[in-house]
Amino acid sequence: MVKRDLETCLSPAMSGVHLNSNSIVVVIDTLRATSAICNALENGAVSLKPVGTVEEAKRLKEKGFLVAAERDGYVLDFADFGNSPFNFTPERVRGKSIVYSTTNGTRTIEIASAGYMVVIGSFLNISALADWLKEQDRDVLLLCAGWKDKINIEDSLFAGALARRLLDSDVFETKCDSVKITLDMWSLAKGDILGYLEKAAQRSRLREKGLDDCIPFCHTPDSTRVIPVYNNGIITRLKVV
Amino acid sequence: MVKRDLETCLSPAMSGVHLNSNSIVVVIDTLRATSAICNALENGAVSLKPVGTVEEAKRLKEKGFLVAAERDGYVLDFADFGNSPFNFTPERVRGKSIVYSTTNGTRTIEIASAGYMVVIGSFLNISALADWLKEQDRDVLLLCAGWKDKINIEDSLFAGALARRLLDSDVFETKCDSVKITLDMWSLAKGDILGYLEKAAQRSRLREKGLDDCIPFCHTPDSTRVIPVYNNGIITRLKVV
Repeated sequence: MVKRDLETCLSPAMSGVHLNSNSIVVVIDTLRATSAICNALENGAVSLKPVGTVEEAKRLKEKGFLVAAERDGYVLDFADFGNSPFNFTPERVRGKSIVYSTTNGTRTIEIASAGYMVVIGSFLNISALADWLKEQDRDVLLLCAGWKDKINIEDSLFAGALARRLLDSDVFETKCDSVKITLDMWSLAKGDILGYLEKAAQRSRLREKGLDDCIPFCHTPDSTRVIPVYNNGIITRLKVV
Repeated sequence: MVKRDLETCLSPAMSGVHLNSNSIVVVIDTLRATSAICNALENGAVSLKPVGTVEEAKRLKEKGFLVAAERDGYVLDFADFGNSPFNFTPERVRGKSIVYSTTNGTRTIEIASAGYMVVIGSFLNISALADWLKEQDRDVLLLCAGWKDKINIEDSLFAGALARRLLDSDVFETKCDSVKITLDMWSLAKGDILGYLEKAAQRSRLREKGLDDCIPFCHTPDSTRVIPVYNNGIITRLKVV
């Protein structure tokens, strides 16, 4: 079998040279957007609509959506709750369509839609996602949301963890230096992921705001088999046949 | 003493969010432009003018400049020699002003000129450069040329080697995730740099074209104390006081 190509783009600023319309794009924003999205769908949410601006979140709140929105760590006054994965409890989200306000995440998802198909990745669904990607017979691009167009450690690390699984399967091959850099990160981190993450700038930012309680949860693999898929502005669960 | 900030930008595509007018920018394109520039000045060249297009190189050749230019590994018919550091021998370059045609390198140097000052780094001058940077009392940005706006392993690795020296000095500190990623690369590679580079895409490209003979030379530290500095379109040796 001809192997499929695996590439990684470590910041949306480089998406112009990595994206192509034939690749499945995996969007990665592990702290916290893509972890929260996986958890929301696992807990019974029908859909999530990622929005980039506070204004749009507010407008949709007025239309009756449940809204998760915060800025700089504070829940916005009109929102129902904040952006932590822990907020998406079954009691709150089951059967609901949710608006999720995230700056980096929303932008990255929109950029990703130039690809063949957009799915959402995090440690929460890493095995389900890897298994599914191996069956698609498609090239794959791992697209990290990063932090305001800079590279971040946490998304790069997850890209390395997922790349390791895909390349170990013999379905994929890579000539992409960014993939290889993240494989090295994963090899250094896998024995103590939380220890490795101590040096991440986002680790410090979340700690300073008291928002770091979700970090162990966001790095615990396989709490769900859900694969979130983005289409026409909405994220729903992929129907795996 | 207040520590100075160290950042690394792994591709020119992210320079918009990393560059600022207060930082000294170190341009890195180790295979082969910045290694060749260091070697040319060490061997007595008076100056180098980096140019991005074949047309400009040709125009300057007609004006009497010595021209180093190749595309896809072939020396251009009007050029005096190709882009390998080995071509810049004392016999050829002493006392000369040289036009050096390089696509990624030229573009990166031009982007870098938005910074406070632009200097050129490679393993050839790593100690001289690190020593000088520690004395400037300025923030520093390491700017990797990469490969067509993608990240490459060889420039990232050199950024890690230089960052290690700067941070070990206690003059610099960093909150930049990209710096930390390259420090990990350097920690994995430093015992066997050439072995580590085997996985770099540029390693394969140069091998396929028979242009890889310079790789050990480009990764041998401290063959020169020259610090190339870019100003108004021209690279000359920094007068260190």
